[in-house]
Amino acid sequence: AGAGGWSDDAAEIAPHLAEWRGRWRGQTPLLLRPGKAAEVACILAICNETGTPIVPQGGNTGLVGGQIPTQGEVLLSLERMNRIRNVDVQDNVLIAEAGVILASAQKAADDADRLFPLSLGAEGSCTIGGNISTNAGGVGVLRYGMMRDLVLGLEVVLADGRVVGTLRSLRKDNTGYDLKQLFIGAEGTLGVITAAALKLFPRPASYTTAYVALAHTTYAVELLQRLQEATGNLVTAFELLPRFGVDLVLKHIPETVDPLSRHRGWSLLIETSNPRAFDARGVLQEALLTASEDGLVTDAVIAKNERERRQIWRLRETLPEAEKHEGPSLKHDVSVPLSRISEFIEATEPEIYRILPGARPVIFGHVGDGNLHYNVSAPVGDGAALDAASEKIETLIHETTRRFNGSISAEHGLGLAKNEVIARYKSAIEIDVMRALKHTLDPKNILNPGKVLPR
Amino acid sequence: AGAGGWSDDAAEIAPHLAEWRGRWRGQTPLLLRPGKAAEVACILAICNETGTPIVPQGGNTGLVGGQIPTQGEVLLSLERMNRIRNVDVQDNVLIAEAGVILASAQKAADDADRLFPLSLGAEGSCTIGGNISTNAGGVGVLRYGMMRDLVLGLEVVLADGRVVGTLRSLRKDNTGYDLKQLFIGAEGTLGVITAAALKLFPRPASYTTAYVALAHTTYAVELLQRLQEATGNLVTAFELLPRFGVDLVLKHIPETVDPLSRHRGWSLLIETSNPRAFDARGVLQEALLTASEDGLVTDAVIAKNERERRQIWRLRETLPEAEKHEGPSLKHDVSVPLSRISEFIEATEPEIYRILPGARPVIFGHVGDGNLHYNVSAPVGDGAALDAASEKIETLIHETTRRFNGSISAEHGLGLAKNEVIARYKSAIEIDVMRALKHTLDPKNILNPGKVLPR
Repeated sequence: AGAGGWSDDAAEIAPHLAEWRGRWRGQTPLLLRPGKAAEVACILAICNETGTPIVPQGGNTGLVGGQIPTQGEVLLSLERMNRIRNVDVQDNVLIAEAGVILASAQKAADDADRLFPLSLGAEGSCTIGGNISTNAGGVGVLRYGMMRDLVLGLEVVLADGRVVGTLRSLRKDNTGYDLKQLFIGAEGTLGVITAAALKLFPRPASYTTAYVALAHTTYAVELLQRLQEATGNLVTAFELLPRFGVDLVLKHIPETVDPLSRHRGWSLLIETSNPRAFDARGVLQEALLTASEDGLVTDAVIAKNERERRQIWRLRETLPEAEKHEGPSLKHDVSVPLSRISEFIEATEPEIYRILPGARPVIFGHVGDGNLHYNVSAPVGDGAALDAASEKIETLIHETTRRFNGSISAEHGLGLAKNEVIARYKSAIEIDVMRALKHTLDPKNILNPGKVLPR
Repeated sequence: AGAGGWSDDAAEIAPHLAEWRGRWRGQTPLLLRPGKAAEVACILAICNETGTPIVPQGGNTGLVGGQIPTQGEVLLSLERMNRIRNVDVQDNVLIAEAGVILASAQKAADDADRLFPLSLGAEGSCTIGGNISTNAGGVGVLRYGMMRDLVLGLEVVLADGRVVGTLRSLRKDNTGYDLKQLFIGAEGTLGVITAAALKLFPRPASYTTAYVALAHTTYAVELLQRLQEATGNLVTAFELLPRFGVDLVLKHIPETVDPLSRHRGWSLLIETSNPRAFDARGVLQEALLTASEDGLVTDAVIAKNERERRQIWRLRETLPEAEKHEGPSLKHDVSVPLSRISEFIEATEPEIYRILPGARPVIFGHVGDGNLHYNVSAPVGDGAALDAASEKIETLIHETTRRFNGSISAEHGLGLAKNEVIARYKSAIEIDVMRALKHTLDPKNILNPGKVLPR
């Protein structure tokens, strides 16, 4: 093995080849770990000249296989490019290399009395480069946007080794095509991101966190609108939780408490981030009371302190882990227009029970932006039945999503998981344009080949 | 002339050929006015097959000549595509055709008790299609973002006549390359936008508008940060005004009043948009008082009613008109990092006086996002001297902008005004990638040829 910069040692490479849910398994003759953009440039120039395929990898937390070299490609880990180059509190900009762990970026912002708002389950291991390449979402999108909205500038190495872009941290720059947009969400198929200038925000002075018993999913959107109007868009999180999902958490995760244990229906985790001058607590309380009088919600608690706040969040954050403990499950990551979320659930849930009696849907997610993580756990002790029904269930979810003008990948991307099926849900013209862009920027198809685009 | 759909009548075409500042003059054999996307598709398919260049035009308010057929191209006006197809208050989406006037889109949102936040001087005549094609900015960017941030979906006709994209109004959709980003800000060189799905917001319950005497430009950024922290980012407008600019307004525009007439320095127009539950007035007042004690500001007034608010805004809104009355002027539209605005002004102003004694800089703009409209009026009665010095002054502004890591076009675009000079300020690689994208999407170079890209 080379001095940090590369390795052909199987044991050292192994953790990079295993996808955490075990769905894909990689193989590679060589792991490269460049320490700076110039080295990435050098690597890509050689790969391009020799037609050697290469797969970029961040924290290896992706959910669609985009980061795995399944065809024996060279593996390019950005993990050593983990410097935070600058935190500018006047311009509210943080410049991070691609391999910076998301939690480290959050901490660097926090240390400077600022907020970097991207927040998601994998934040302890996922990287900024991966977050940008997949246009990551998470629990703060409603207020702060997707990763795309947080990027001011990029440094990108093109397939042929040229370095494009500057890390300018301008809020406004209309000088021709906005090239950085191409690489955000392209899952490493158009270039390799080596660093980014990211937006910072004022740190909220406080949070108001509520756990709410919803009378019916159909009221979620109206409740959100009322709360946004009342608080002036201070709502940061608006997360839907199903009864069964909360029950799984209580069953499998230690030290979890249900603040509304008598409620048998859907719940919402609602949080506002408050500025110094305005604590939304009173407004939220009042709006929830009115909503209760109007029959939208049946019960609600507001966290009285940070401990209670963490307790509520724990129900949401540990849900994927709890699902895993319960056995195999199918995952879907769809979005539909907000107004149709309830209708979408009603159109799909009974059909799932028809396809697979005993199946246990766990539907949760970021309702504030139309995004449902629509998972289906196997019937108790019967993973084989789920396997057998998986194609039918996936088709049901995706076809219904299409019927509701939704997206079959709201935030996870396409990777290897949906790059074929997407051909059914995008127009041939869109796929054509995508292919044309890929050919223009990576004519020899060396960058993460076989991902994103259908074969 | 055809029944609305086309015209070769010189008198009818004339208004489409005159650029409002008289800088460019167009000529065309034919004005086409399609009524729907399918007609645009048909037109472009024919143009592409026959290699006929064509220039798309919205409200003809562009500031860089992008909308003018200077080479005798066919002119494609989108003005008849002026339907608002849908206003959805549940999903907060407005679907507008390209020819919808910005003010009409604002009104349609307002009628539905929502806000469409894009706001700029030309809003009474500019169109949604033009706003998207130039990624328009304006006075609400600080709070709501540029036009790019307000677009959820696009309908675009490609150079070969294929129609791409859907008007899906999803907040989250990570299914491959985000194609709409390519066409936003491309000034009609990559495709013709025919309709868009746009984001709506809750309508503010009230505004707090202040007019502030700034002790020195160097304090602007700190003041903004204090106000953002105090109000929780409710600041919507933060506009810098120079003494000389305000004086021009008072001189040339009837019924204008200076609320701080004894103040001889720079002023700020500051506005917050307040939610129902929280009127920022008290917080703003308090923060301005503290800022005054700390020596950042020397005086301030807060509008007591809508009439006073309109009075303050009138100083900002009529400034370009007042400049025009005063005689010829050079215009620059630059952005620099927020923290360097004051330093930038100090580095350029004395140099301008050296180049052209008697020149009168009028520097104003959206300081909240680093954007300065850096204009220079001719010495009294001496337009010829300004003409003679214009190249030197432009070079000074642009070279200083480069030195400050800024952009030479913050919001107006490149068009014909800066498509050559941009080659000095962008890397050759960036220009190469732009050219490659242009060739991929418009191989016969029929769409707005000669604009944006250097020759």
